[in-house]
Amino acid sequence: MHVYRSHTCAALRESDVGATVRLSGWVHRKRDHGGVLFVDLRDHYGLTQIVAKADSEALRILDGLRAESVVTIDGTVVERGPEATNANLATGAIEVVADAVTVQSSASELPMPVAGDQEYPEDIRLRYRFLDLRRDRIHRNIVLRSNVIASIRRRMIDQGFMEFQTPILTASSPEGARDYLVPSRVHPGKFYALPQAPQMFKQLLMVAGFDRYFQIAPCFRDEDARADRSPGEFYQLDFEMSFVTQDDVFAAIEPVLHGIFEEFAVNRTVTAAPFPRIAYRDAMLRYGSDKPDLRNPIEIVDVTEHFVGSGFGLFAKIVEGGGVVRAIPAPGAGAKSRKFFDEMNEWARAAGHAGLGYINIKDGVPGGPIAKNHGEEATTKLIAALGLGPNDGVFFAAGKELATAKLAGAARTRTGEELGLIEEGVFKFCWVVDFPMFEYDEDAKKVDFSHNPFSMPQGELNALETMDPLDILAYQYDIVCNGVELSSGAIRNHKPEIMYKAFEIAGYSQADVDTNFSGMINAFKFGAPPHGGSAPGIDRIVMLLAEEPNIREVVLFPMNQRAEDLMMQAPAPATPRQLRELSIRVVDGPKA
Amino acid sequence: MHVYRSHTCAALRESDVGATVRLSGWVHRKRDHGGVLFVDLRDHYGLTQIVAKADSEALRILDGLRAESVVTIDGTVVERGPEATNANLATGAIEVVADAVTVQSSASELPMPVAGDQEYPEDIRLRYRFLDLRRDRIHRNIVLRSNVIASIRRRMIDQGFMEFQTPILTASSPEGARDYLVPSRVHPGKFYALPQAPQMFKQLLMVAGFDRYFQIAPCFRDEDARADRSPGEFYQLDFEMSFVTQDDVFAAIEPVLHGIFEEFAVNRTVTAAPFPRIAYRDAMLRYGSDKPDLRNPIEIVDVTEHFVGSGFGLFAKIVEGGGVVRAIPAPGAGAKSRKFFDEMNEWARAAGHAGLGYINIKDGVPGGPIAKNHGEEATTKLIAALGLGPNDGVFFAAGKELATAKLAGAARTRTGEELGLIEEGVFKFCWVVDFPMFEYDEDAKKVDFSHNPFSMPQGELNALETMDPLDILAYQYDIVCNGVELSSGAIRNHKPEIMYKAFEIAGYSQADVDTNFSGMINAFKFGAPPHGGSAPGIDRIVMLLAEEPNIREVVLFPMNQRAEDLMMQAPAPATPRQLRELSIRVVDGPKA
Repeated sequence: MHVYRSHTCAALRESDVGATVRLSGWVHRKRDHGGVLFVDLRDHYGLTQIVAKADSEALRILDGLRAESVVTIDGTVVERGPEATNANLATGAIEVVADAVTVQSSASELPMPVAGDQEYPEDIRLRYRFLDLRRDRIHRNIVLRSNVIASIRRRMIDQGFMEFQTPILTASSPEGARDYLVPSRVHPGKFYALPQAPQMFKQLLMVAGFDRYFQIAPCFRDEDARADRSPGEFYQLDFEMSFVTQDDVFAAIEPVLHGIFEEFAVNRTVTAAPFPRIAYRDAMLRYGSDKPDLRNPIEIVDVTEHFVGSGFGLFAKIVEGGGVVRAIPAPGAGAKSRKFFDEMNEWARAAGHAGLGYINIKDGVPGGPIAKNHGEEATTKLIAALGLGPNDGVFFAAGKELATAKLAGAARTRTGEELGLIEEGVFKFCWVVDFPMFEYDEDAKKVDFSHNPFSMPQGELNALETMDPLDILAYQYDIVCNGVELSSGAIRNHKPEIMYKAFEIAGYSQADVDTNFSGMINAFKFGAPPHGGSAPGIDRIVMLLAEEPNIREVVLFPMNQRAEDLMMQAPAPATPRQLRELSIRVVDGPKA
Repeated sequence: MHVYRSHTCAALRESDVGATVRLSGWVHRKRDHGGVLFVDLRDHYGLTQIVAKADSEALRILDGLRAESVVTIDGTVVERGPEATNANLATGAIEVVADAVTVQSSASELPMPVAGDQEYPEDIRLRYRFLDLRRDRIHRNIVLRSNVIASIRRRMIDQGFMEFQTPILTASSPEGARDYLVPSRVHPGKFYALPQAPQMFKQLLMVAGFDRYFQIAPCFRDEDARADRSPGEFYQLDFEMSFVTQDDVFAAIEPVLHGIFEEFAVNRTVTAAPFPRIAYRDAMLRYGSDKPDLRNPIEIVDVTEHFVGSGFGLFAKIVEGGGVVRAIPAPGAGAKSRKFFDEMNEWARAAGHAGLGYINIKDGVPGGPIAKNHGEEATTKLIAALGLGPNDGVFFAAGKELATAKLAGAARTRTGEELGLIEEGVFKFCWVVDFPMFEYDEDAKKVDFSHNPFSMPQGELNALETMDPLDILAYQYDIVCNGVELSSGAIRNHKPEIMYKAFEIAGYSQADVDTNFSGMINAFKFGAPPHGGSAPGIDRIVMLLAEEPNIREVVLFPMNQRAEDLMMQAPAPATPRQLRELSIRVVDGPKA
């Protein structure tokens, strides 16, 4: 028999009754029942109940061990009997009567328990992460993460992608977040940077002729922590394809994302591919967000026209001044008290907005100040246009377009939540497409790029030369699931002449472009294919599937909010010799 | 039809003749044949011959383009006819007559050609790596690398391993090579280190209860470059298993390595699993190396006893003084001239050794000074013991054991090469096992660890307490292929009491251990399973399979020998603001 185990702790069944077995694992729980000791023995795979009989040597040894000690049990499989069977446990029909116990590692007193669901402070959890990771929920999350990544890889390879490793010690990128720097020993005074994303490398891979690249890519940003962002490093499914249109990118990645969510959704449903495409401008209008949560059935409606010359003077004046009015239907809210509507208004004001108007319909009768002043006929027309029922409500946001859209979006979310309308047990995907290429920068009083300067403008050079820049759309797209942006992507601008022209519109000279983006521009001059891609965040995908709001619950060894690894005690002071070799010195005193 | 392609450049066959197709790719080569232009169009997948007819618009456009421009070709598939068929090309039976050409990207004059096998200087290749990577050999190597890694992952998962990502921003390890440091912005004066290997994390994963871990792990060592080692980063197949013996580790990884080599060996044979196990002491004796190349059929033989009181005084004296004599048979070398033997001796002297003696047998008659002085009867006995034939030779190395073993090993390699005995077209694997736990440090005049202090000593605590330390073996093993060490591994010492005792033998106190290895020791106190693993080098595996002696040929974007990324221009100076944020200053002037 194997020196440590004949079976794992999840393997034994009723059919094994009578067998002589050997199991190894951790002492999860001990219970004394009238002189008999029951031990739940735990390993990676599951739990098996061990029984140590009264007065046995096995009992003596197990009794003397603390929880989380590691033991090997030699014993015999016996049936528990129907009344003692644990249906929640794969091995619940049997138990193992211990004949002999070998202690592999006896545990000291624990700083935190492993069994049970008790919450523990983050600093204890992270300092003793090797204990924390033994706990059922986090153990399952980390296993899920590994399975998700393995499945992504399999699916990407099935789609004809190849995984390549791009460098981790590389150059600082001129844009984006703050880089982590690595001093060079060989080149005093010079530094490598850790990649914020392998954006440049993946485009160069396309220029190098590799057709379909992907990578479960480690990315590094020296930014402060958020619930959905670890300090330090995170992973994305980075991918890029050559000779493709936007639809090709969607067609390649939709089966992967859909497949992953289907595989791991367990009793939750997933939007069928192809996912809905929503133009950026429609998303801002109907959902008040470029990250629409489609689990919320409420759709915002523009009702500006209804308030031209309205008896409700506030809105009439806003409309006259070029502003907009947006309606946020609140199905069934007519039955709610006035307090519900007032609290929504207060919430909007507290969040810095001008406030939310409303109409509440009770048994077909519209109430509230807007209905009163807007006039009966106009109100009836408005309600009909919105398709509201006899006990519905509706909120109104009014003002300048962008701010109003955002307020309407926030009100849509809050209304959906307050009314319990958010669909549960679903993953609702959509693409947001047709982002504007340029926007008017009110502060700088000039046209600037609205998102990514390296995306291909729709209509290419012709559009740049003939259209109003603010009307030009980009081949740029976001993938959104349940209101969470999983990634941005784009068909890239691979033509130097179009890039120079786009930058010219945003006020940059050819020399500016050559200075700041020489690597990419030069590569494109030696034969570049049309290409595009995206980079869905792995951590966010796993958070959605695990229904965990904090990234700490889906990362193996996360740093804390202060960017410290409490277990490994990083960061730590360097030795004088290390600093000397790197030709750097630590600056004491206050930072300049 | 798709805007860029109906087929890849490797897809079209005779059965497609007559079809209207669209292809996109790079202009690989152009040839003018009597007014007709032939273009090899290349993409990731292959080549297709394009024909532009005389006086056509397609010809005019293609004629005006430089090599490596990217074009889309609309055309018709036609048969080449038997005399024009290119059997070396998957698409060699057809060509595409171009009806229209769309230029996607017109190439400037190239700094290096893509077509052809011409060698180019490293700095040009690395500066324009995106061009270099288009070349056939390197393109195939990188594709091979990707396929090897994907296959390793699939095989590891099939063996029940799960892949986990361990942190890249972590703590400096107290041992091993030089770390790369990353200054912390949040904690002035403190530094992260990039992992030299995830050794500590993988052991903590076992302590955390994950049973079988692996990772295609990026590792970082700030060491100078070698042909088989990139400056900066490299990848290893890091793995670890719980509740295992050394044989379990072998049984888990042998099918993976054997499978990988079988899959990608193409006309080369691979040692069947289980791979031979060779004890360290036997390896040093028979092969003069702990990395034996089993493609070399020569085995070294200890002939010390033969020279006790020999007439060959030099060897007799060495033996009397406790030294050894090792014989390196040279099959068939008797037919070689005296020059061959003298040159071997000179080579050994040039390498700093005392020299190599020899006997050369010609038609059954032994010659050379050793045979003469050793005496006829003794020489006959010696030759019989070595099983030498009538026209074989044999070299002798003599002196202190370790140095002699190494000289014999080097002589074995050189003899095998000179005599053309190294088997070709094979991958010969073996395990080297039973490394000694301790060795006598001649300089410090004390016992010290010979390899890894964290390996489990064979016999555990009992061995440490009762045996001569120099006789204790460790559960430590190397996997070797064709004389290349792919990795070291071990069953780890997971018991604090055995660790304290092992360190005590090597002269370290319990306090020393607690100070230097607190993270690991503390974790082991909360219930640690027996565990072990290894970490074969990915780059070395791909180098072996691709038969490339330089790691640069199997890495996508390698740095040069001076640890520079010439394409991305890394490392580079940091901005004053970056340095300020990181609370560091660059030290000018000479290094202290």
